[in-house]
Amino acid sequence: MDLMNTSKPEPFAAPEVIALKRDRGELSDAQIDWFVDAYVRNVIAEEQMSAMAMAILLNGMTRREIVRWTQGYINSGETMDWSKLGRPTADKHSTGGVGDKITLPLAPLVAACGVSVPQLSGRGLGHTGGTLDKLESIKGWKAKLTNQEMFDVLNKTGAVICAASETLAPADRRIYALRDVTGTVESIPLISASIMSKKIAEGTGALVLDVKVGSGAFMKTVDQARELATTMVAIGNDAGVKTRALLTAMDVPLGRTAGNALEVAEAIEVLSGGGPSDVVELTVLLAREMIEAAGVSNTKDPADALNDGSAMDVWKQMISAQGGDNDAPLPKAKETFEVKADKDGYLTKLDALSVGVASWRLGAGRARKEDLVQAGAGITWTAIPGDEVKKGQTLFTLNTDEPARFELALESLMNGFEIGSKDQVKDRFPLVIDRIV
Amino acid sequence: MDLMNTSKPEPFAAPEVIALKRDRGELSDAQIDWFVDAYVRNVIAEEQMSAMAMAILLNGMTRREIVRWTQGYINSGETMDWSKLGRPTADKHSTGGVGDKITLPLAPLVAACGVSVPQLSGRGLGHTGGTLDKLESIKGWKAKLTNQEMFDVLNKTGAVICAASETLAPADRRIYALRDVTGTVESIPLISASIMSKKIAEGTGALVLDVKVGSGAFMKTVDQARELATTMVAIGNDAGVKTRALLTAMDVPLGRTAGNALEVAEAIEVLSGGGPSDVVELTVLLAREMIEAAGVSNTKDPADALNDGSAMDVWKQMISAQGGDNDAPLPKAKETFEVKADKDGYLTKLDALSVGVASWRLGAGRARKEDLVQAGAGITWTAIPGDEVKKGQTLFTLNTDEPARFELALESLMNGFEIGSKDQVKDRFPLVIDRIV
Repeated sequence: MDLMNTSKPEPFAAPEVIALKRDRGELSDAQIDWFVDAYVRNVIAEEQMSAMAMAILLNGMTRREIVRWTQGYINSGETMDWSKLGRPTADKHSTGGVGDKITLPLAPLVAACGVSVPQLSGRGLGHTGGTLDKLESIKGWKAKLTNQEMFDVLNKTGAVICAASETLAPADRRIYALRDVTGTVESIPLISASIMSKKIAEGTGALVLDVKVGSGAFMKTVDQARELATTMVAIGNDAGVKTRALLTAMDVPLGRTAGNALEVAEAIEVLSGGGPSDVVELTVLLAREMIEAAGVSNTKDPADALNDGSAMDVWKQMISAQGGDNDAPLPKAKETFEVKADKDGYLTKLDALSVGVASWRLGAGRARKEDLVQAGAGITWTAIPGDEVKKGQTLFTLNTDEPARFELALESLMNGFEIGSKDQVKDRFPLVIDRIV
Repeated sequence: MDLMNTSKPEPFAAPEVIALKRDRGELSDAQIDWFVDAYVRNVIAEEQMSAMAMAILLNGMTRREIVRWTQGYINSGETMDWSKLGRPTADKHSTGGVGDKITLPLAPLVAACGVSVPQLSGRGLGHTGGTLDKLESIKGWKAKLTNQEMFDVLNKTGAVICAASETLAPADRRIYALRDVTGTVESIPLISASIMSKKIAEGTGALVLDVKVGSGAFMKTVDQARELATTMVAIGNDAGVKTRALLTAMDVPLGRTAGNALEVAEAIEVLSGGGPSDVVELTVLLAREMIEAAGVSNTKDPADALNDGSAMDVWKQMISAQGGDNDAPLPKAKETFEVKADKDGYLTKLDALSVGVASWRLGAGRARKEDLVQAGAGITWTAIPGDEVKKGQTLFTLNTDEPARFELALESLMNGFEIGSKDQVKDRFPLVIDRIV
């Protein structure tokens, strides 16, 4: 409908742009630029952005629209530039899983192989842990750095993991909080824009995405994960960041630990040349992808850098440069509870979501952004699917500072595993399901 | 995903209820009751309701959900009761059209035939006029009555047209304002709930819906209009209000006038036994429907009540009971502009939307709720499609207090009519397209 021709500084009317997406139309570049920018300027209200988010979720976006929407997020804040480092940079982003501590050994490992890793990371929400929460279980370690401090740590050690500044893609920060309360999280265009805007603004030269698939991941099916990965790889490459993705298994939790300090300990095992084979394998594979994406060859193989102690050296420097005490013992939970096998047989199932929710309920994760996490809380397990178990063997150790949490944690965990005969062992995803370049 | 079992007084979480509708689920009665009520209590935020509105718009609602959602609106405020009148009551609602002044002669006409008409009405927004705006062009007439005053006017004269109190379906009032800015107006479930909640809360015993179809109406196609009418008739009957609907033409404007005082003058012509035949015919048809729906027979036929002056008597009493001066001349615009035929021929087209937008731009309607309307602004026309016209004949007279408005009004109007040969006269809808009971 025609509107009165009143003098109006804004080039569009929000309800009309929303209605275009509502009616399955394609937003123009100018409309997208304006919509995100006007939201940041508070010309578009929260309720208008949430109606738009629902319309995007239900009607989708073309590749062009997603790239432009992502650029809107990036343009809302500052972008970082590591060219002064004079070294190639690469980063990794995981869509989140249970027991996914890969970033911890990976960042120093890649640095040890000559590629700098400027990682801006986040805290956990829900049953998947956050890298910063894990590192904060190290005495003295601080997540918050100024840009100059971040540069200095990176320049000195080759790797830095710190909290994303609020000046990076602030539009995404606000829109994410909005989506969280309006049932509009589960949108591939909006998830992609959220992840990629921060990684592109972060200024990394190369990016490897670890898109998790399975019960413990956000993406439950390979098709969903492939769509997300393909979308994000395209956004990254369009923005000049050499981007590739691995689709990896999250039907079973990674390694043998879930929880903050517990995962740090496991990461240190891996950096010491030990650790669970799946964690080691995925760390090495992702490191190779990062190094290759960064365009570096003729360098040490990551598998060797785990064994020769060079990755561990970078880890210690990196932790110490951010105030962490490498010698302080990691915190332990006050109370433990053991779950033992009630019969002989084989572990036929170990469900990532059940373990993740149990760990979360023990205090390792938060339900709301404001919640604190317990450093020592979480779960360790002694067997993975296919392993033979003996009646009375400890299968799981639950850790928490608040024993009242055991009951609800067990409620989730007890549905998450089964003991049966060898032929009942459930099929599981291969560790790497697909690779998208 | 399971949430921590924190003690929570609310029975549902808003994002989960929104996600259910987002995923094409059906909301339970309890979820709907809670969602509307929690919104009224400000437990559900504007952005959550707008995401829900978009999900409803795109995914629809079942009949049961719509009826319950409407009931939520009704329950948010007071409901009126006319049983003390001791007379049957009936009301009419029009979905809005150009030149649609039918309520003005209709209410006193139905009252003259023995059925009381308690009409709560609204103001216009956009190119369709509002009944209160029209009546306010009568010197002294006041729209705002207390419940007691409304009862007294109704009891004394048999008809009352006044502003809906803010205590009637307040949830709808807020949600309508929200939909207006979030691109979520065009939803049949939400339109139905908005209209029917107010009419049901108003306490009328019978209700006739005039669902307009065509360029000048909200519903552009017969199918859309039929869906809306069927939905509203079901909601009304479910709530115990005897409800029926006529689908009527709005491809061509009604009568020969659009604008507030201009339409009052035309209504008075009809009450005097004259007036344009389409206005007379529709008024009589709707009056018969209202009387029949109210269960009254053995009464005067409405056509007779227009001719014998009894409807005019009620009109005068009704206007005067609300402070209106029946003898004061109606306001006239300060400036007029005539559009003349540039050739001999037949009027082949007269588009309701073009006329409506032109009238709106002259000052008869408002672009925002806060805007004032001009009492004298609007358009009159001398010919309707199929009429022979002579070169130089005045086809339209544009009226406004602000001559700067002529240009934009003409821009709309000039695309709205054509002069051609008799065989070029465009097909138009019959006055009554369908009847839904």
